[in-house]
Amino acid sequence: MNIQVPPPATKSPDATARVLVQALPHIRRFAGRTVVVKMGGGAMTDPALDRSLAQDVLLLKSVGVRVVLVHGGGPQIDDMVTRLGLTPEFRDGLRVTDAETLDIVRTVLVGKINRELVAAINREEPVAIGVAGEDGGLLRAAPRDAALGFVGDVVEVNASILQLLLDDGLAPVVSTVGADAAGQAYNINADAAASAIAAALGAEKLIYLTSAPGLLEDPADQASLIQRLSLSELRRRMEDGTAGAGMIPKLRACYEAVQAGVGAAHILDGRLPHSILIELLTDAGIGTMITADGAPQE
Amino acid sequence: MNIQVPPPATKSPDATARVLVQALPHIRRFAGRTVVVKMGGGAMTDPALDRSLAQDVLLLKSVGVRVVLVHGGGPQIDDMVTRLGLTPEFRDGLRVTDAETLDIVRTVLVGKINRELVAAINREEPVAIGVAGEDGGLLRAAPRDAALGFVGDVVEVNASILQLLLDDGLAPVVSTVGADAAGQAYNINADAAASAIAAALGAEKLIYLTSAPGLLEDPADQASLIQRLSLSELRRRMEDGTAGAGMIPKLRACYEAVQAGVGAAHILDGRLPHSILIELLTDAGIGTMITADGAPQE
Amino acid sequence: MNIQVPPPATKSPDATARVLVQALPHIRRFAGRTVVVKMGGGAMTDPALDRSLAQDVLLLKSVGVRVVLVHGGGPQIDDMVTRLGLTPEFRDGLRVTDAETLDIVRTVLVGKINRELVAAINREEPVAIGVAGEDGGLLRAAPRDAALGFVGDVVEVNASILQLLLDDGLAPVVSTVGADAAGQAYNINADAAASAIAAALGAEKLIYLTSAPGLLEDPADQASLIQRLSLSELRRRMEDGTAGAGMIPKLRACYEAVQAGVGAAHILDGRLPHSILIELLTDAGIGTMITADGAPQE
Amino acid sequence: MNIQVPPPATKSPDATARVLVQALPHIRRFAGRTVVVKMGGGAMTDPALDRSLAQDVLLLKSVGVRVVLVHGGGPQIDDMVTRLGLTPEFRDGLRVTDAETLDIVRTVLVGKINRELVAAINREEPVAIGVAGEDGGLLRAAPRDAALGFVGDVVEVNASILQLLLDDGLAPVVSTVGADAAGQAYNINADAAASAIAAALGAEKLIYLTSAPGLLEDPADQASLIQRLSLSELRRRMEDGTAGAGMIPKLRACYEAVQAGVGAAHILDGRLPHSILIELLTDAGIGTMITADGAPQE
Amino acid sequence: MNIQVPPPATKSPDATARVLVQALPHIRRFAGRTVVVKMGGGAMTDPALDRSLAQDVLLLKSVGVRVVLVHGGGPQIDDMVTRLGLTPEFRDGLRVTDAETLDIVRTVLVGKINRELVAAINREEPVAIGVAGEDGGLLRAAPRDAALGFVGDVVEVNASILQLLLDDGLAPVVSTVGADAAGQAYNINADAAASAIAAALGAEKLIYLTSAPGLLEDPADQASLIQRLSLSELRRRMEDGTAGAGMIPKLRACYEAVQAGVGAAHILDGRLPHSILIELLTDAGIGTMITADGAPQE
Amino acid sequence: MNIQVPPPATKSPDATARVLVQALPHIRRFAGRTVVVKMGGGAMTDPALDRSLAQDVLLLKSVGVRVVLVHGGGPQIDDMVTRLGLTPEFRDGLRVTDAETLDIVRTVLVGKINRELVAAINREEPVAIGVAGEDGGLLRAAPRDAALGFVGDVVEVNASILQLLLDDGLAPVVSTVGADAAGQAYNINADAAASAIAAALGAEKLIYLTSAPGLLEDPADQASLIQRLSLSELRRRMEDGTAGAGMIPKLRACYEAVQAGVGAAHILDGRLPHSILIELLTDAGIGTMITADGAPQE
Repeated sequence: MNIQVPPPATKSPDATARVLVQALPHIRRFAGRTVVVKMGGGAMTDPALDRSLAQDVLLLKSVGVRVVLVHGGGPQIDDMVTRLGLTPEFRDGLRVTDAETLDIVRTVLVGKINRELVAAINREEPVAIGVAGEDGGLLRAAPRDAALGFVGDVVEVNASILQLLLDDGLAPVVSTVGADAAGQAYNINADAAASAIAAALGAEKLIYLTSAPGLLEDPADQASLIQRLSLSELRRRMEDGTAGAGMIPKLRACYEAVQAGVGAAHILDGRLPHSILIELLTDAGIGTMITADGAPQE
Repeated sequence: MNIQVPPPATKSPDATARVLVQALPHIRRFAGRTVVVKMGGGAMTDPALDRSLAQDVLLLKSVGVRVVLVHGGGPQIDDMVTRLGLTPEFRDGLRVTDAETLDIVRTVLVGKINRELVAAINREEPVAIGVAGEDGGLLRAAPRDAALGFVGDVVEVNASILQLLLDDGLAPVVSTVGADAAGQAYNINADAAASAIAAALGAEKLIYLTSAPGLLEDPADQASLIQRLSLSELRRRMEDGTAGAGMIPKLRACYEAVQAGVGAAHILDGRLPHSILIELLTDAGIGTMITADGAPQE
Repeated sequence: MNIQVPPPATKSPDATARVLVQALPHIRRFAGRTVVVKMGGGAMTDPALDRSLAQDVLLLKSVGVRVVLVHGGGPQIDDMVTRLGLTPEFRDGLRVTDAETLDIVRTVLVGKINRELVAAINREEPVAIGVAGEDGGLLRAAPRDAALGFVGDVVEVNASILQLLLDDGLAPVVSTVGADAAGQAYNINADAAASAIAAALGAEKLIYLTSAPGLLEDPADQASLIQRLSLSELRRRMEDGTAGAGMIPKLRACYEAVQAGVGAAHILDGRLPHSILIELLTDAGIGTMITADGAPQE
Repeated sequence: MNIQVPPPATKSPDATARVLVQALPHIRRFAGRTVVVKMGGGAMTDPALDRSLAQDVLLLKSVGVRVVLVHGGGPQIDDMVTRLGLTPEFRDGLRVTDAETLDIVRTVLVGKINRELVAAINREEPVAIGVAGEDGGLLRAAPRDAALGFVGDVVEVNASILQLLLDDGLAPVVSTVGADAAGQAYNINADAAASAIAAALGAEKLIYLTSAPGLLEDPADQASLIQRLSLSELRRRMEDGTAGAGMIPKLRACYEAVQAGVGAAHILDGRLPHSILIELLTDAGIGTMITADGAPQE
Repeated sequence: MNIQVPPPATKSPDATARVLVQALPHIRRFAGRTVVVKMGGGAMTDPALDRSLAQDVLLLKSVGVRVVLVHGGGPQIDDMVTRLGLTPEFRDGLRVTDAETLDIVRTVLVGKINRELVAAINREEPVAIGVAGEDGGLLRAAPRDAALGFVGDVVEVNASILQLLLDDGLAPVVSTVGADAAGQAYNINADAAASAIAAALGAEKLIYLTSAPGLLEDPADQASLIQRLSLSELRRRMEDGTAGAGMIPKLRACYEAVQAGVGAAHILDGRLPHSILIELLTDAGIGTMITADGAPQE
Repeated sequence: MNIQVPPPATKSPDATARVLVQALPHIRRFAGRTVVVKMGGGAMTDPALDRSLAQDVLLLKSVGVRVVLVHGGGPQIDDMVTRLGLTPEFRDGLRVTDAETLDIVRTVLVGKINRELVAAINREEPVAIGVAGEDGGLLRAAPRDAALGFVGDVVEVNASILQLLLDDGLAPVVSTVGADAAGQAYNINADAAASAIAAALGAEKLIYLTSAPGLLEDPADQASLIQRLSLSELRRRMEDGTAGAGMIPKLRACYEAVQAGVGAAHILDGRLPHSILIELLTDAGIGTMITADGAPQE
């Protein structure tokens, strides 16, 4: 049986125009605003997704959105550590980072993953620029716990360098290696760094691209997506344990950003092409959105 | 058998995102450029079209295009002349304009048609501002022919006032009443005025919204659209009479604008919703495009 | 008997210089300040007065004063309503404004009276630009009373467009048609609109050009001019009825502007040539001046 | 018989307004332009004239003219030289200037005459600022003739310091002491310095205030004023000796300024109050005006 | 025995580089900050010191310090008063200043001492510009005591003119003659004026160059230098008489500046070459430093 | 025998001041100018040198010099290639760069060497920022030779990103990985890249820090330094083989930069502490300087 499916409406120019017009209210809402997108290391393996990401960034820039990318890189670091004959070591889920490991972490984040993201965007248009947290004092860090070695927390964000680049029309891609006042480097959790950067920039949105559809009521049930959470609901879930332990650091990062004035934090499925565009420029709400208590429905 | 036809792709957020992404190269091409759109008086009677026009203007502004609207108003002027008990008089297709008629022309153009266009846009977002050719010395005019009375030609365009408004993010809507050095007002043909304004602004595009699909090989055959003309082909058609006499003034306006450096002039069907967006932001070429000899294919 | 009157002192260049020097303290006082001048429709029938007004505006601009003109147009509207075969209808002194009347009001104000004022100034130097309250969201309106139809009150002034034009050295001429959020137009009382604009601009002076010498103690006695009123005296007169009922709306407009921080409101005789210059740049006080309680003598 | 002569027209506010309006075209012509006024030392002895000068400067500033004063000081220098027990010595009309004399010249020019001019203006409004040719490299000098000692000619003008002060709304008062590259000071003829400064500033007018009505056909006949001279006529008179020898340096200064692009040079009678205003802002031409060949009649 | 002493380290380029590097923390500390240096009239007699001062000013400017010089001139005034056949008269250590004396004071300060300082700097690079307190309303004065004549106190500082010159990269040299609102000039104590100027500029340092090593515990013992005083210690010394009476005015000036927010006041020995540089750019503390109570050790 | 050698002169504050003053003419010469410093990978192994470099950069910044660092990294790349079990392969002295090698090159340059340089400077003051040639289109590359794989030449420099960072007071540290229009990365010779960057920035100086004293007449004789070469002398030496083959690429880079307008190229010994400061801010000329023919002696 040969069913003739009609061609997609988007083939007609008129339908295209109508799609654009439907995006208009969203476009106007975000013009001139800042959006911080955090990508997990796991999200960066598919060239098609890279291209989709690059297009999303460029399209957002075209409509006046200021976009900052922040990336992690766990899998790639593990891979390099292993290739160099070392054994990754973790304590409470955090990488134990001695001087040699720090060197590898930094090399992989700044020299490899950041480069690949920059290249993916610049392949379309040369507007991306890699920035490490050490550059121009962007991320000032302090050690978290002596037992973890050079694992740090953000104690201050000097966002002026990002503002400078954004004002110039560039799209900064940030590796989350910071430094303390003495210049010692620290490996910083990328989720937390993205949250601190979004707060320092007064961002409208903080978006986490993950490999899940969002926050799930039941982690085993992909259909149990929680679409929206207020800060107080989020706190309750973090406290009573109904949010899975694995999600706690990311949820805390969301909490802190919104607490500090970021318009909303989103946990999206980075495996879907154009998930950023869909969230920002269409009426569809995907993933989980976290907003201040009493924030209006979008 | 019950075949489930999929919903049009544009209903899906993903398809929407893909449509946006397809517009990206066009968006990037026109960012920061100026587009002058001339609307005939006849094109301004349908509220749905008004809304479509307003959306097109706002969407173009959102992606950084500087949009100037220029309007005519023949039918509305005739209507008012008649309501006031006078008889419209034409010579060689041009309105004989004595002082009383000039007063009516100006009143209708500036006080009625311009207002309606401004209102249509501002209903969506208050960015339109009416401007008459007399304002700030925008259109300096000289009389064309004593027998026609106060009918004038543009002798100089002071585009600084339009640049000021465009720089401020506003969308000027221009009525084509000009003035000579002594302050005497003149009625100016809107096609010619739009051409002179586009040239003075160094516009990328000059778009005429008409009530035809474009320039037709055979005026009786709507399917005989000429899609593209170089300046020298256009000149030949104007000279050998193969362009219908009624189109000559508009074609000459196109010719002069492109000659003066405007990227391309377009004659589009203003009765189609979103025809401006379709021309500028999709791959579809509609209507007739006039470019310099040797201009690259778009 | 043949009395030889001496020639006026101004014929001598030296006396001219002295006159200029006497204006100096006034000039320095107003440099960089904003003056809003409201002209009634009745004041705009005499070409000599038009020229005098234009010269006043240009001279004030030359010495650094930022001038905004606001105009009404009752008589001209009545005239057009009648020409079009309708009958003007008033309720409590306010024009009942149905959709058709609103269309006429707007057409006459924006398309005719505004144009004539712009032309009068631009005949001298092309610095005037017509602006309607709908342009760029200048006057946001709300309906006053359903029985009056589209008669509105100003609820918000977006003065940025006027500041933009003033910064560029232009002289805006404002027609007081406003719009609500949905884009519906409203006819707004010009006295009230001028007051709201003066307040929004932080004007130094709000000047009403009328066809009377100012506020009279006894309306029948042109010599009973009240030269100066404090806000509290003005309120008393409005409350106890000693100010004639016909003047109440204008006086209330004065009251609100000064209340909102405008330096002084003046009611002058617009039939005198150069009354604006005389008030601003000479020691002579003409007409009635309304100031805050406790304001210093000028 | 008691004839009531009307008060002079300028007493009436209306006449005042008319005088202002008559000045308008002149005001508009000079707005934003620069005028350099050179005052001789002899012109600075009458307090009433000082006040008149101050008012002229302030009024010109009020209408946007950029005013630079340059002063000499022969009589005051002679006086101080004599008080200190020395004997002024001249060669070919130029002061022989040894180190001690230079010290006195500088002290009197900068510390006394300049101060009095600054004080006269600042008594009205504190906008004057004294500047010596040595300040910020304003006047770079070279020695004229070893026999004259520290008498110098201007070899370069660094006008940026004057532009800085003028941009800030100040009125610089310049003493014409310059310096060579090694920092050695020189006494510079003020007429020549004013000419060089006017040229460097691209001034519209260079005005010499003298104690004569202008250039006279017959020096003995005050009524033989030459009202206007073209550069070629001026050269002829300088060459054939019909311009009195005493005027040659000033005439050469005029010649060089106009040659270098200054709009016109004027020799006026500084003893008349407000002679600057009369020349610039009234139709009256007083004194002698020197313009380029073929310059239009004013 | 012939011991070969090595050449001074500074002859070696490497040692030079090390000296520069040692100055780096100081340079970075003062970049963009303002330093006001007051020179006594007695400090200005030695050409070598003039050159040293000029070099210090230029070096500080090169590393981004904004330098203002303020000068006095007692000895030179006495000298001129005597040369002109008058007798200096003092009351309580203050010069009785009648109109003739004021004229001499002003002439010597502005026309002679200021000039020599400006010339000393401009001999190296033409960045100095003389400014008197009367210029542009810099120092507004009020009479101190009728018996002293035209001796004034600073009642207001209009520092905008100094900021303008500093922003332009110039080094202002200030003579402390001020004026009251009516334009009457007054002789102002230079120590007090420097203090007021430092406060108005929000200076980091106020430096007095004197002919002593600093504040001495025992004026007869040059080795009894007090290196550092807090404001409360200084007040105690001023009150209990342990600070010599002759130092009281200068100490009060220091007190008021630091009280008003100046970082520190210093009393240095102006007879030492480069004492300003040594104080600002080396680790050596010379002279006496006065700081707020609780200020950190430098 | 115990000879007491006097302490070095630099211990005395006065001598320190004199050293600073001696640097003054150099400081003034370079203020606002740009200096590009290329460091070889071999020069980056000694922490003391790192500190010396950081201090030089900060001191130069303090006196207004705009500093760009460019680095190579051959030894470190070899090291990583070997650690990862690969074998470095060269052809005509150039690294054969397949995709895997390119990945390692980029990771080491951007993620390791660049980071260490940034950290060395930021340890003193956080003003360094790492930039790769791919960022913002800085280095546009084209492949050199298919046999070499991803080895590229610079075909275009987009210096705007460096100017942006320099204007903001930052010190860019550049890794010389470039990209072609399609986004493919290439390894670019750092000597050539530094030359192209210096030319694009209109630099005053291009400095190569090497592990030799400069260009030697006889490579075996460290004392045979050539202190200065004109472009034509340099060309001759490159052509006749008297410049050792190993130096040819670096000499060609010098040649091209000076040819393109860079003031001078220097080959210095990077093993000497503060060699940059010594070259720029002292009278000592070290290393080899290459200037245009006819350039003045420094």
